Amino acid sequence: MKRIVVLRLGHRLFRDQRMTTHVALTARALGAEGVLFISGDKTVEQSLRDARKRWGGEFYVRGGVNWRDEIRKWKDAGGKVCHLTMYGINLPDVIDEIKGTKNLMVIVGAEKVPAEVYDLVDWNVAIGQQPHSEVAALAIFLDRLQEGEELKRSFKRGLKIIPKRKGKCVKRG
Amino acid sequence: MKRIVVLRLGHRLFRDQRMTTHVALTARALGAEGVLFISGDKTVEQSLRDARKRWGGEFYVRGGVNWRDEIRKWKDAGGKVCHLTMYGINLPDVIDEIKGTKNLMVIVGAEKVPAEVYDLVDWNVAIGQQPHSEVAALAIFLDRLQEGEELKRSFKRGLKIIPKRKGKCVKRG
Repeated sequence: MKRIVVLRLGHRLFRDQRMTTHVALTARALGAEGVLFISGDKTVEQSLRDARKRWGGEFYVRGGVNWRDEIRKWKDAGGKVCHLTMYGINLPDVIDEIKGTKNLMVIVGAEKVPAEVYDLVDWNVAIGQQPHSEVAALAIFLDRLQEGEELKRSFKRGLKIIPKRKGKCVKRG
Repeated sequence: MKRIVVLRLGHRLFRDQRMTTHVALTARALGAEGVLFISGDKTVEQSLRDARKRWGGEFYVRGGVNWRDEIRKWKDAGGKVCHLTMYGINLPDVIDEIKGTKNLMVIVGAEKVPAEVYDLVDWNVAIGQQPHSEVAALAIFLDRLQEGEELKRSFKRGLKIIPKRKGKCVKRG
């Protein structure tokens, strides 16, 4: 895998702001290079800028994008696109097909995703066939895709946590 | 694994309601038998009751619990307790120890978790050493714990999704 970008669809101000922030933090922590979302809301960008300042790395956030344009540009540049939805092919049955992809855009929706998205993408992938959470779906997907390697990587600059059985230990990086 | 229960700490009305609902839906979809949370807020219970009615299974939700009492009762009955926190031992280094557990309570916090929790539990486990989301942490933890089996199980009654490469297909169970 060379590059992973997350495109978050839907985002009603206030109602979805925290979920979008969690999507972005999850993407950052689990190996994506950045997140795109369609709302122009600045709160999510601010939260992620704070996280990057404190915890390091180069993660970017771009709000106010047009999703059709972003998907088109990504595909035109030779990238593949995967949409996480409970209606898709179950993850264990499709992950091996996806693993070879060099540049992957991962789309996660909020409640209603336009039917067009299902047709535009290379894969519609279910993380189990039950309703749960776009954050949960993204997390398991990224973990399986990278075979757990994403949990071992470290970020340039920023605070470092020293793992402990009890209590907390944080060091300057 | 015989039983998995999720205890959700923290829950400020409104601000955390949707996150708590996502925690509960994720727990349900990924093999937990129920979720406990400390707020008395009825919205989360209602959402999960709706999900169960529509999608089947026996998942339960209990709000308004005292977390100290719940941890104590669980341990007194011979169960083990695991707390997900970015300060803990990284998942790949501890999951094999946890897998043998028969009855496991999984604690996920919101922002601030009382220091006492770190001492009371059997394991503090990090899903990577970066900040992200309790929903993401819970999802990856449950997936690794059950080695993906949770994505293949079906629920009694309720709608069934037939996995598709494009579009949606839902059947009555």
